[in-house]
Amino acid sequence: MAKESDKFAYYPLFRSGLPPPARRFAGLLPYNFSGGHNDAEQIPIDALIEASVAVLKRHGSRLAIYNLGHGPLGYEGLRDVVATKLAKRRGIACSRDDILITAGSTQGLNLLNQIFLQPGDTVVFEEFSYANAIRDMRQLGVTIVSAPLDSGGLEIDALDSILGNLRDRRVHPKYIYTIPTIQNPTGTILSLDRRHKLLSLAEKFQTVVIEDECYSNLVWADDVPPSLYGLNPKHVIHVGSLSKSLAPALRLGFIVADWQVLSQAIACKTDGGTGALEQMVAAEYFFDSFDSHIAGQTRALESKLGSLVEALQREFGTSIEFHPPEGGTFIWAKLPPPIDVRKLIQPAANAGIAFNPGPEWSCGDDPATSHLRLCFALPTAEQIQKGIAELARICFDLFGIPERGTNASRRIDS
Amino acid sequence: MAKESDKFAYYPLFRSGLPPPARRFAGLLPYNFSGGHNDAEQIPIDALIEASVAVLKRHGSRLAIYNLGHGPLGYEGLRDVVATKLAKRRGIACSRDDILITAGSTQGLNLLNQIFLQPGDTVVFEEFSYANAIRDMRQLGVTIVSAPLDSGGLEIDALDSILGNLRDRRVHPKYIYTIPTIQNPTGTILSLDRRHKLLSLAEKFQTVVIEDECYSNLVWADDVPPSLYGLNPKHVIHVGSLSKSLAPALRLGFIVADWQVLSQAIACKTDGGTGALEQMVAAEYFFDSFDSHIAGQTRALESKLGSLVEALQREFGTSIEFHPPEGGTFIWAKLPPPIDVRKLIQPAANAGIAFNPGPEWSCGDDPATSHLRLCFALPTAEQIQKGIAELARICFDLFGIPERGTNASRRIDS
Repeated sequence: MAKESDKFAYYPLFRSGLPPPARRFAGLLPYNFSGGHNDAEQIPIDALIEASVAVLKRHGSRLAIYNLGHGPLGYEGLRDVVATKLAKRRGIACSRDDILITAGSTQGLNLLNQIFLQPGDTVVFEEFSYANAIRDMRQLGVTIVSAPLDSGGLEIDALDSILGNLRDRRVHPKYIYTIPTIQNPTGTILSLDRRHKLLSLAEKFQTVVIEDECYSNLVWADDVPPSLYGLNPKHVIHVGSLSKSLAPALRLGFIVADWQVLSQAIACKTDGGTGALEQMVAAEYFFDSFDSHIAGQTRALESKLGSLVEALQREFGTSIEFHPPEGGTFIWAKLPPPIDVRKLIQPAANAGIAFNPGPEWSCGDDPATSHLRLCFALPTAEQIQKGIAELARICFDLFGIPERGTNASRRIDS
Repeated sequence: MAKESDKFAYYPLFRSGLPPPARRFAGLLPYNFSGGHNDAEQIPIDALIEASVAVLKRHGSRLAIYNLGHGPLGYEGLRDVVATKLAKRRGIACSRDDILITAGSTQGLNLLNQIFLQPGDTVVFEEFSYANAIRDMRQLGVTIVSAPLDSGGLEIDALDSILGNLRDRRVHPKYIYTIPTIQNPTGTILSLDRRHKLLSLAEKFQTVVIEDECYSNLVWADDVPPSLYGLNPKHVIHVGSLSKSLAPALRLGFIVADWQVLSQAIACKTDGGTGALEQMVAAEYFFDSFDSHIAGQTRALESKLGSLVEALQREFGTSIEFHPPEGGTFIWAKLPPPIDVRKLIQPAANAGIAFNPGPEWSCGDDPATSHLRLCFALPTAEQIQKGIAELARICFDLFGIPERGTNASRRIDS
């Protein structure tokens, strides 16, 4: 179009403190172990077609009305489906009036940040946490105080001390952000006992817990403890996702919270409502297929996890440490400390491989420079095998590690 | 659920400066002349079903990938449809890489505000303008300087003086926000001559024009001047909507702008992408039905405008002033100055009637206390007749106006 010299210079008019501008999208890499994508094989295309046809026939003309005429909380049919699911699976007793449908759990978190936070505020995060949530705090000028995790999730005694120290310093954290069920990135599930103790701390320190349960449907076991909100809603704001359970390109999440919070979230939600067609189709499909859908999806994910575990062990041997997650779509893995995974990003990308570098998922004392988050939902079993073999080769070329996989010495092979 | 006394008090933890919390949604009123709804009869249900089936069959499995794997600008198929439509109807030469799909034009405007504005900034608005945009400026702590409108839209000479005065005071407005094609709320179309002059002012004062063209497809005449962006993109950011043209409950809009702006908009668009199913279905339907759809929709809207004009003249006679709009979905009408329409809101609501009170659409010297915005897309012809008759009766009971309609003296009738 215009020559660069003819262009108007917009930058001087932009506000200060903007995030860095995006780069041009260059397409997805073929061996994609990054991001929260899902398994393309698990999209129930025929059932979504059936749902679309049925719900458009029944309610299509309502699309002429903002929010289908159901108000800013969202489509009543979807709120009813969510309420039923939350009662059955997450121990939550709520009605459609306690649920705000959002454009993914991401918008739910954004709205809560808009309500609670201003520059200079303090929040408590788990030491490893959702990269975008960490990024948002930094963008907002909010201080993160981190609480340690172990193989059972949030360490409650340590959290007690941290909150006590903050109180001594007269710092009142705006909220504790936790991912209790399939912690992101570590993949753990917080025990019932720890959940009760966490709720006691919220009461003791009179603070708010935001529980992000976006992966809570995707667990291998049947006996998951109830959500924190289900155990006692008093201090808890529950954020959930349907995108993760169905299809990430559909933007559907929800907040369950006291009206004090929801009424303020609605006032900040200036988007004209969450997309109604996606709400209608998801509600129609999930109305009687939720359990069977989740059962099929978790089976497929657990099988892909198996492929990734096998590939990592074969290719990296004892050079990689991880606990297989109890659900979800990712492994949090650690390479030997001399390796800084940030130096691996570009060489891996050159070979068509993407992963999430650990440092983006750390907000605590451990910078996670040797950690990677490896997502296993999108790549096929074959892509997992090839991609991990190639990643190990690149890693060895750069760092001399892994020297051997399970069955073979790499140094001799190459 | 919990007793009020058991509730946690969230308010002390909320940030300062929040908008007022929402009230519980009480349902839509039967005689609804408010908001940007559309005509329910014009939703092409069968064609949307056909489009859903076709596009889910073809691309359904891509829903597993964020943004369908097409990157943060949005679904390539929809960006291509938008580019084609803009070339044909709005004189814009652009490619899919110049278009960011947003969740309605509302999100487009929100993103631009995030990029440009901080408290204390100044923007230039038309004296009567989109109520939500005015509200957002007040919420952001941004000063609006208003430019006058006449029956041809923005008064260019007055704008020249206003920009000159600002320059003398060393105030550099961040942007000029204009709705050139079906001005909201006044319904005018800016002439080609004024468009060229407006672009010259942007060059003269080195500022940005945000043109909001969300109603630009819904015009009665065939010979609409090209968009400002089409005439010269240098200073212009073009914001458009597909929601208005198809169905407001679908959240689909777009920004066309220089990469300096788009790259920053993407960085601020932390929503995980615009809903993909709505993008796919709209693209599939519009690919070869855009012109016929718009033709049918504008015919239906123009007919409803006729019903509203007739009802207003019959019921309010010479007591109401308005220029029938050249397109869109609303009339900007004025009652005699002693009437403050804010006193009409509650009595009208009690009778099941909703309208947009003028003061919310004013940011200039005229507070528009006697103005109403009456939307004619959603109510049926019968609801228009009944609702306006009832509104006139309430108005007469409260203010003694209108004393007579076209054919009858109200005072004698009652």
